[in-house]
Amino acid sequence: DVSRDVNEGLIERFIKEVDNIQIQENLRVLTSVPHMATTEGDEKTVQFMLKRWRDPDSGLDDAWREEYMVYLSFPNSTSPNKVTVVSPSDTVLFTAREKELAYEPAQNDPDVVQPYAAYSPAGHPKGKLVYANQGKVSDYEYLNTTMKVDLTGTIAIVRYGGAGRADKAINAFPFGVIGVLVYTDPLDINDGRMSDVNETYPHSWYMPPSGVERGSFTSQFGDMRTPYLAAKEHTYRIPEADIRGIPPIPIQPIGFEDAYALICELDGQAAPADWRGAFNCSYNIGGPGFRSTSSYNNSDVKLDIYNKGELRNSSNVMGVIRGSVEPDRYIIYGNHRDSWVHGAIDPSSGTSVMLEITRVLGRMVKKGEWRPRRSIIFGSWGAEEFGLIGSTEYTEEYYSKLRDRTVAYINVDISVFANATLRVQGSPNVQSVVFTATKQVKTPGSDSTSVYENWIRFFNRSSPTHGLVPNVAFLTGAGSDYAAFLHFLGITSMDIAYTYDRSKTKARIYPAYHTAYDTFEYSSKFIDPGFTSHQTVARTAGNVLLRLADSLLVPFNCSDYAEGLEQYLSVSLENFSDSLATKGISLEPLKNAVANFRTAATSLNKMIRDSTLAKETPLKVRRINDQLMLLERAFLDPLAFPEKYGYRHVIWASKSSPVPTFPGLADAFARAQESNLPTDWSQVHKHLSIITQAIEGAAYTLGDVI
Amino acid sequence: DVSRDVNEGLIERFIKEVDNIQIQENLRVLTSVPHMATTEGDEKTVQFMLKRWRDPDSGLDDAWREEYMVYLSFPNSTSPNKVTVVSPSDTVLFTAREKELAYEPAQNDPDVVQPYAAYSPAGHPKGKLVYANQGKVSDYEYLNTTMKVDLTGTIAIVRYGGAGRADKAINAFPFGVIGVLVYTDPLDINDGRMSDVNETYPHSWYMPPSGVERGSFTSQFGDMRTPYLAAKEHTYRIPEADIRGIPPIPIQPIGFEDAYALICELDGQAAPADWRGAFNCSYNIGGPGFRSTSSYNNSDVKLDIYNKGELRNSSNVMGVIRGSVEPDRYIIYGNHRDSWVHGAIDPSSGTSVMLEITRVLGRMVKKGEWRPRRSIIFGSWGAEEFGLIGSTEYTEEYYSKLRDRTVAYINVDISVFANATLRVQGSPNVQSVVFTATKQVKTPGSDSTSVYENWIRFFNRSSPTHGLVPNVAFLTGAGSDYAAFLHFLGITSMDIAYTYDRSKTKARIYPAYHTAYDTFEYSSKFIDPGFTSHQTVARTAGNVLLRLADSLLVPFNCSDYAEGLEQYLSVSLENFSDSLATKGISLEPLKNAVANFRTAATSLNKMIRDSTLAKETPLKVRRINDQLMLLERAFLDPLAFPEKYGYRHVIWASKSSPVPTFPGLADAFARAQESNLPTDWSQVHKHLSIITQAIEGAAYTLGDVI
Ligand SMILES: [Ca+2]
Ligand SMILES: [Ca+2]
Ligand SMILES: [Zn+2]
Ligand SMILES: [Zn+2]
Ligand SMILES: [Zn+2]
Ligand SMILES: [Zn+2]
Repeated sequence: DVSRDVNEGLIERFIKEVDNIQIQENLRVLTSVPHMATTEGDEKTVQFMLKRWRDPDSGLDDAWREEYMVYLSFPNSTSPNKVTVVSPSDTVLFTAREKELAYEPAQNDPDVVQPYAAYSPAGHPKGKLVYANQGKVSDYEYLNTTMKVDLTGTIAIVRYGGAGRADKAINAFPFGVIGVLVYTDPLDINDGRMSDVNETYPHSWYMPPSGVERGSFTSQFGDMRTPYLAAKEHTYRIPEADIRGIPPIPIQPIGFEDAYALICELDGQAAPADWRGAFNCSYNIGGPGFRSTSSYNNSDVKLDIYNKGELRNSSNVMGVIRGSVEPDRYIIYGNHRDSWVHGAIDPSSGTSVMLEITRVLGRMVKKGEWRPRRSIIFGSWGAEEFGLIGSTEYTEEYYSKLRDRTVAYINVDISVFANATLRVQGSPNVQSVVFTATKQVKTPGSDSTSVYENWIRFFNRSSPTHGLVPNVAFLTGAGSDYAAFLHFLGITSMDIAYTYDRSKTKARIYPAYHTAYDTFEYSSKFIDPGFTSHQTVARTAGNVLLRLADSLLVPFNCSDYAEGLEQYLSVSLENFSDSLATKGISLEPLKNAVANFRTAATSLNKMIRDSTLAKETPLKVRRINDQLMLLERAFLDPLAFPEKYGYRHVIWASKSSPVPTFPGLADAFARAQESNLPTDWSQVHKHLSIITQAIEGAAYTLGDVI
Repeated sequence: DVSRDVNEGLIERFIKEVDNIQIQENLRVLTSVPHMATTEGDEKTVQFMLKRWRDPDSGLDDAWREEYMVYLSFPNSTSPNKVTVVSPSDTVLFTAREKELAYEPAQNDPDVVQPYAAYSPAGHPKGKLVYANQGKVSDYEYLNTTMKVDLTGTIAIVRYGGAGRADKAINAFPFGVIGVLVYTDPLDINDGRMSDVNETYPHSWYMPPSGVERGSFTSQFGDMRTPYLAAKEHTYRIPEADIRGIPPIPIQPIGFEDAYALICELDGQAAPADWRGAFNCSYNIGGPGFRSTSSYNNSDVKLDIYNKGELRNSSNVMGVIRGSVEPDRYIIYGNHRDSWVHGAIDPSSGTSVMLEITRVLGRMVKKGEWRPRRSIIFGSWGAEEFGLIGSTEYTEEYYSKLRDRTVAYINVDISVFANATLRVQGSPNVQSVVFTATKQVKTPGSDSTSVYENWIRFFNRSSPTHGLVPNVAFLTGAGSDYAAFLHFLGITSMDIAYTYDRSKTKARIYPAYHTAYDTFEYSSKFIDPGFTSHQTVARTAGNVLLRLADSLLVPFNCSDYAEGLEQYLSVSLENFSDSLATKGISLEPLKNAVANFRTAATSLNKMIRDSTLAKETPLKVRRINDQLMLLERAFLDPLAFPEKYGYRHVIWASKSSPVPTFPGLADAFARAQESNLPTDWSQVHKHLSIITQAIEGAAYTLGDVI
């Protein structure tokens, strides 16, 4: 029993029992009403999750809720945010749409929240309009310096993309901009299509003219008033004024229909070609302000923003299956539960998949047919849309035990962006188990092609070790709830979804993302009719989960981690070596560290290969498994990025530099190259030492234990 | 074999084989020449340790050296530091002794380093002398404010005690003091005795008039130029100018003979009674400067300091005995190897004990008679005297694997301060294993009285759980190499020694401490004739080591940790509750956290009691052992004390407040009470939340694993 390995028959049975119609019905219930974090609709989904996970026939061993008092931001329902064009005599010449146009009853639900920018301050800025492309620092600089536009007192209109949501306002502020409008250009989301007569939803999956992407306008994750502390009622909170990373000036998202009405009336020079979207006008940058021939001549754009920060009770729903042999080892599988509106794709496509996985596993547990070797924890996180809050508070509260016991975190948020191919992001050491699982699961609608065979056609790379393989992308961002697990806790993580055929669409993301159109009907019609891609993700993620939970040997290949480090190293050598040499800084120590890591990984793998683990003592297997589990932790340095909340992983932390290599090194190098200050070159040296020490430390953990 | 428990017969045999004469002979070799860090003498001790640990009959499985390039500070041997009294016409009226008087040949060794203050800057300050008691902030304030002495441009003379070495200069600087002399008053070290004719060494253990305590004048530990990074040759170093916690002005230690000649000539008012030491004069505070009737009238005191910071190669010597069942669990036993001069007591009394322990254990291993369940790592640390450098660099380099695998750290630095009683400092959970061991070892020179029975007469307390027990003191400082293990890594640690009968002496420490008199002859004559107290410490520490290494169940009692937390809680409630209530800050959450910890500890202990561990699966025993091992780690918060290098343990970190409770809370409370600023009260709330979360997190780790 102690030496029991994964049961392939059980995995086959699991694959067989995962049912697309069950997923569809899960989704129908989850999306019956809007369920924005902490609303009544959210509470309904809490109850639904609890009911399902407590089901006597298909529930888990235990399920409960955990609450946190977190800082959210909402518009005022009785005094909605307004965007208007106001003449010098204070006549309102234009009013942007307050709510998206409804094409089906669900979209008319009074609980559909008005499009807004969460964490935008309230305020009533009024000024001449300018077009500022994507709101990057370079965009405002270009307007200011090259185009000689005085931005003081202006309202900037920018399109989504290129910069983070909050950054569009944060970047604008130093130039004197007093308010920002943001919209989704049809070029970026609709492959250029604009008309709602036949081109856009409900005629296709494309965003209709009134569609607006909501979002959290913050550049850090977790509850912003309780960094590093779980947001209990009694917990110390930093003052609202001390919150960093949120817009210093009001910002509001609008539909492209309204954006068109404003941008195409602007005065001033035509924007550079790469600033232009799909509108049939020249995207003038603004006088500032409108053309003299426009009916808006001399008029200002005014924002009336009534958003308010509030402390609200947000719930995670937790469920567990207790491990039989190593209950103190956890595989965590999670997704957020809260949406902006109905959230059929984001996040309920993931939640309906999670519920199907727990149904199938729960039945086996309840029947006494199976119990995993390790414990499985399921998390239905709250308030992700506001900044990964529920999952982050969870990691803060249970830091110690999660850090010491968690083998892996699997995140399936949007399970199906589109139905073309699998897409996996994760630590390099998960590659092998993902490959094993995907070779065993068939691609939707096929009895012969595996997910793996399909995947490799869409995303592949040439591995020095394995040859041509599907590309498991590095998990470098904070795009969903894996962030706190990977970056803060150093837990090996992955994010799994089905996604686009990029030869068919250039859309930034599926066009209903964070709009009122992200409904059950939209999903079942345009994203995954028949829900077979959902089913494929459930089979794939569940298969990975079972292998992680049941394998005698934790199925991580540390040599694949070495390959990832070698890739980063070669980029660093190529991009930084020469410049650093002139500053007397050598990359040799880093090179040696990566080589030591490779050697340690090779010898651990040889030791594993040379052992018959089922015949070894349980403590020897446990020792190797601990080495594999704790490897990721060795890359944590809680002081490496003092300015970035929660980022402690020196390999996968976020960065500003586009060079695909170690983040601290890349960013320090970019800064030093720009300033050429000796103190900045010292910081490059410092980050080099931090990374080198982390990799050496990781190599020690893989080496002989004594 | 997997369920093998500690063998009591083996422990009895160990006790029997520990030999006082072997310890004496170890000490003789270790102290044959001065062995200050990185000197030739130090290298000799490296070679000696390696020879002993590689001995084919009594050595360890493996032994090696590890080197770090660390920042040390030395006087200039060709241009020694000078302290003089200089008349207005530049005549030198007085010169302080440059070296201590030699009473035996060893003390005449040319390698006896001149007394100096390591890390004092070089410089040549000259000014009127003032007497500033112990150099505390309050002492300088008293002079400045109450006594109306203008300290600008003065040289302060202060006595050891009351404030850290570096602080005496750091505190002086803001008052305009330009140089500091420090000496040991006979009241504080010699129970008042001063004469070398018959009262002091070589006639007794008391410090002779020319004796000077050397020391490191820094208030942080580890290599000061590489915080958080192991000091490899290639490692990034902060600029010397950025080093914090070292004296901003020159400081130099002198003997009390010279201090007497200066202090008793001072002008000005007599010092307050509690500022006075044993000199037969009134400790005038200085005009500033000397009395008009003194031959030093109008003269200045001048310091000529030539200290220099240098990067030097310092070695740790490491040795291991590989564990048979759980090689990936470490018990670390260590002591520093470097001394200021011959260091017979500090540190060689500890090293000679460590070598006797390794001799006895090594023989059993080499004969194939025994191999511990867990691995034992012995560390002979370098450059401790300069600031716990070798041990700290070791923890920085191997952070990840030490953090995940170390069960406990045992420190035996000065093993025998005096031969009256055992003294143990440690985490509360080591109490039980120390009690077990001390009940089994006899006190020196007795066949019947146990160390425990003797100990309880000198240090005891009333435990709510156990009744009257010997007092294991909390390990709150950074007095020796346990600091990085406990405060930085969160490893359960203890420090063991034999010490004074406080009814017989009030000496701050044994009087030869850090002087040229700390020799083999001094130790064998005045500290431990026959070396039986050394033997007793070897037996006790070795017994604890064996129990930690061999017990099936890690012998930590987590309920004793609860008692420690409850003690701190009650002090907080008593001292802070009322004031905090008026600020709307409640201690209830902290109270609940401590109660939850107690409950979790009780239930884990019940589970242990109800199990027959030898019959349980190895993985269940390992799980409980992991809970016990990792408990201490749960108290780490790397961001709790951003200003204090290496202090991450929120229960045992150093503090300024004298209130014996949670350090962050005590210090924040003291600050807020003084300033009464709302932002400072907020910091109290913040620290309360940090401590509460850490204790809750620790309780979770003790609870059911899922
Ligand atoms: Ca928080
Ligand atoms: Ca260091
Ligand atoms: Zn999502
Ligand atoms: Zn989302
Ligand atoms: Zn010492
Ligand atoms: Zn010392």
